[in-house]
Amino acid sequence: MSAALEVAGEGRAFRATDPRTGAFVGEEFRVTTPEQLDAAVSAAKAAFPAYTALPPATRAAFLRRIGQELEAAREKIVETATLETALPAVRVGSELTRTVNQLAMFAELLESPAWLDARVDLGDANRTPSPKPDVRSMRRGLGPVAVFGASNFPLAFSVAGGDTASALAAGCPVIAKAHPSHPGTSAVVAEAVLRAADAAGLPEGVFAIVFDDGIEMGEALVRHPGIKAVGFTGSRAGGEALTRLAVSRPEPIPVYAEMGSVNPVFVMPGAAAARAKDLAEGLHASFTLGVGQFCTNPGVVFVPNQDTASELVDRLTRLTRGTPSAAMLNAKVCQGYVRGLEKLERAGAKRLASGVSGEGPNEGTASLWEVALADLEEDPELLGEVFGPSTLLVRYGSPEDLLAVAERLEGQLTATVHGEPFELEAGTPADALLQVLVDKAGRLIVNQYPTGVEVGPAMVHGGPYPATSDGRSTSVGTRAIERFTRYVAYQNFPEHLLPAPLKRG
Amino acid sequence: MSAALEVAGEGRAFRATDPRTGAFVGEEFRVTTPEQLDAAVSAAKAAFPAYTALPPATRAAFLRRIGQELEAAREKIVETATLETALPAVRVGSELTRTVNQLAMFAELLESPAWLDARVDLGDANRTPSPKPDVRSMRRGLGPVAVFGASNFPLAFSVAGGDTASALAAGCPVIAKAHPSHPGTSAVVAEAVLRAADAAGLPEGVFAIVFDDGIEMGEALVRHPGIKAVGFTGSRAGGEALTRLAVSRPEPIPVYAEMGSVNPVFVMPGAAAARAKDLAEGLHASFTLGVGQFCTNPGVVFVPNQDTASELVDRLTRLTRGTPSAAMLNAKVCQGYVRGLEKLERAGAKRLASGVSGEGPNEGTASLWEVALADLEEDPELLGEVFGPSTLLVRYGSPEDLLAVAERLEGQLTATVHGEPFELEAGTPADALLQVLVDKAGRLIVNQYPTGVEVGPAMVHGGPYPATSDGRSTSVGTRAIERFTRYVAYQNFPEHLLPAPLKRG
Repeated sequence: MSAALEVAGEGRAFRATDPRTGAFVGEEFRVTTPEQLDAAVSAAKAAFPAYTALPPATRAAFLRRIGQELEAAREKIVETATLETALPAVRVGSELTRTVNQLAMFAELLESPAWLDARVDLGDANRTPSPKPDVRSMRRGLGPVAVFGASNFPLAFSVAGGDTASALAAGCPVIAKAHPSHPGTSAVVAEAVLRAADAAGLPEGVFAIVFDDGIEMGEALVRHPGIKAVGFTGSRAGGEALTRLAVSRPEPIPVYAEMGSVNPVFVMPGAAAARAKDLAEGLHASFTLGVGQFCTNPGVVFVPNQDTASELVDRLTRLTRGTPSAAMLNAKVCQGYVRGLEKLERAGAKRLASGVSGEGPNEGTASLWEVALADLEEDPELLGEVFGPSTLLVRYGSPEDLLAVAERLEGQLTATVHGEPFELEAGTPADALLQVLVDKAGRLIVNQYPTGVEVGPAMVHGGPYPATSDGRSTSVGTRAIERFTRYVAYQNFPEHLLPAPLKRG
Repeated sequence: MSAALEVAGEGRAFRATDPRTGAFVGEEFRVTTPEQLDAAVSAAKAAFPAYTALPPATRAAFLRRIGQELEAAREKIVETATLETALPAVRVGSELTRTVNQLAMFAELLESPAWLDARVDLGDANRTPSPKPDVRSMRRGLGPVAVFGASNFPLAFSVAGGDTASALAAGCPVIAKAHPSHPGTSAVVAEAVLRAADAAGLPEGVFAIVFDDGIEMGEALVRHPGIKAVGFTGSRAGGEALTRLAVSRPEPIPVYAEMGSVNPVFVMPGAAAARAKDLAEGLHASFTLGVGQFCTNPGVVFVPNQDTASELVDRLTRLTRGTPSAAMLNAKVCQGYVRGLEKLERAGAKRLASGVSGEGPNEGTASLWEVALADLEEDPELLGEVFGPSTLLVRYGSPEDLLAVAERLEGQLTATVHGEPFELEAGTPADALLQVLVDKAGRLIVNQYPTGVEVGPAMVHGGPYPATSDGRSTSVGTRAIERFTRYVAYQNFPEHLLPAPLKRG
């Protein structure tokens, strides 16, 4: 069966839409049928034992080969993704590079055995009062993993993105659920993965893709008894729905849902005064980047209500006013953004500035809002995520007042503090604030911006609920592999039956 | 406030029962009130930041001091626990030693920074196309943890047991829920922990105990917003109820429930023939140990249906017949055991032998049962756990027939294969069987027995659902600490605000 055939659904037809025009683009896709889904998961289940037992070097070669196949298809991928998502070609191109680099990072991780956490605890027959058994253990893949593509990262968090790369690295077959907004991009990427699997001589079933323009096939995937874990990046409603499904299965399974947050930024008075221009430009760039369609978008910025912050607020207002609108990822995202702005308005937030609105059905126009700190107590909804190029300035009197609001924050992916050196000494309000924020966020940032998630060994892209459904984990960086593994112990095994990393030789 | 006062409830009174006589023993205890519970969790929440920021050496000293306080109270602990659980004094004494050793193991773990998985990824301002930020990360405690005491391990899995030791080591305050079967033991142990906390100069609230003779206070504990994780060892019904509560909270939290399993043992034909005596004695000792009240009790043993296994079965039958009964942990456990035996009988299992029944209200009498492999297909209930000194022999024709039943097994804490060397070569049915079992159990054992869980760095006491609610984790061994931690990243932090393990100096 050719790779192209393997990715085709057989159910009802649907097409992608160009968000800039609202017109259909690209070829027709068909929804995966329940029979196809069952066959894909069954094949993944059958492939798992052989795939997970492969030498890590073989899996590493597979991951690198996926990267090569993606590079070979770069032109088509960038063209298709640009059309389906309205993201600029430059951004899509750099996201593709990131995707290839992520695959290479996990390949490299596999080449060192450290990730397995292999432990050998030798026995001692002469120990009293009881002999000590020989116990060895290491990580092992959980089994087939369902990965849901994200609308805002058609490559880095989609079919061959971080969840897929880390699950495949962990020894888990992957069934990717294509995001309905970018089926064409998903198909091209899936074909690249299937070609790589073929070239690496992998068992059939290590990878498959599922299409749907609704939610039925995604739900069926999470409910399928052959699926052992779920990776998801998207809305809170979507992540919570999948988590509810997963925990109500006869055999509950872990769901790693990255659901976003408001990523609060706290600007200390000294920083607001001393770095008004830099802060205004940095914050503006961060909250409007990619039409604000990032999970790490700074949605709330705490700024002093004194004159010292006037220049910062004025500059931010002017920058926002001059920001041209751009098409958002799809109609649903755009409608959600408009509803989010309406919610801010209803809650009494003052609109400081709107960007330049363009033509087109799905334009997202930048928006800057302001409230007083006290307003948050009356309406905690003000701290809800607005997915798009909007941010809410919360004007505070004294940095000490920020502690109470920080205590009440929900879990966040990131939390940021900007301060001058003297404001960041031990014992300062900023220090106290960071000590509260450390239990609220997966990543704390000082004097930088939350957007732009570095892919590396130390990154934590996670955070307490509701930023994610599992605040113990990260979906970016090498530790992401741990999500798809469990520990297994081997007691008193003959050497030749042990997995290679647990042999003494 | 004295330690004694801090452990006293203020609600309705209840008392422990001597399982041997059914008579009340020990002093009167009072159920913790909702107000007391709230105060305890609030104090734990308040204590968390300071406690988790302590140098690891201070937490290590605290854990060792708990051990010393337990040793100082050894006589009282053994006396009380023996009375409340009917476990022999020798067993209780060795369990106390294990408990002290576990605390010391986590103290030692804290003295090496490896458990933190601290990572420092230095920045590079000159990287293109974008500067690389400085990102550092490590594990951090989740916050206050609720630990539920287990009836069958009044020390090692109760108030100062493995869950408490690992949570305290991770930097998490602990609220222990005393098991209603052994309130006296729980109180003595809690007082020891409180004395140790006092001696170590810890903030108030690092440890508290909650009493209840019902389930209300345990449920209230899991629902309390200040609680960030739950450790539990007990029944499947209990573990599942707590997990349901935890996932339906406004902020869901992880539950580590160890719910037990049947721990299948597969005896290959050659081993049955060559080691009939050893196997009979080993299996008998394992399934009757502690009146069969172990999570790792071998509840199902697959034995050939050929003559080669006759001696093994005959010996096992005789050993079972000669086994004196003993009082079980409490009336509920004993009633559950009786119901389990009735279920085996109804399902058509043949009773090969019963032990010697003694006098007393809660006696557990050893019981040996037999079915044919084909019977399992008709009634999968035969593979349900019977908590007590019972085991079911499943007679099979050919080792190849075992693969299908292994494929259908639920998740298990352990799975064991006994075989002669020639039966354990690569490519044998036993090898194929182990390759199926590796995805069914947390610990695979060859030619030893599942009871007797070694406490060490490589142990995995866990397993896929329903053996536990979180098959990625272990509740025994040093890795148990990971359950109560999350990763936190620090980006672009000034050196002096970083936690010590992330500083470069």
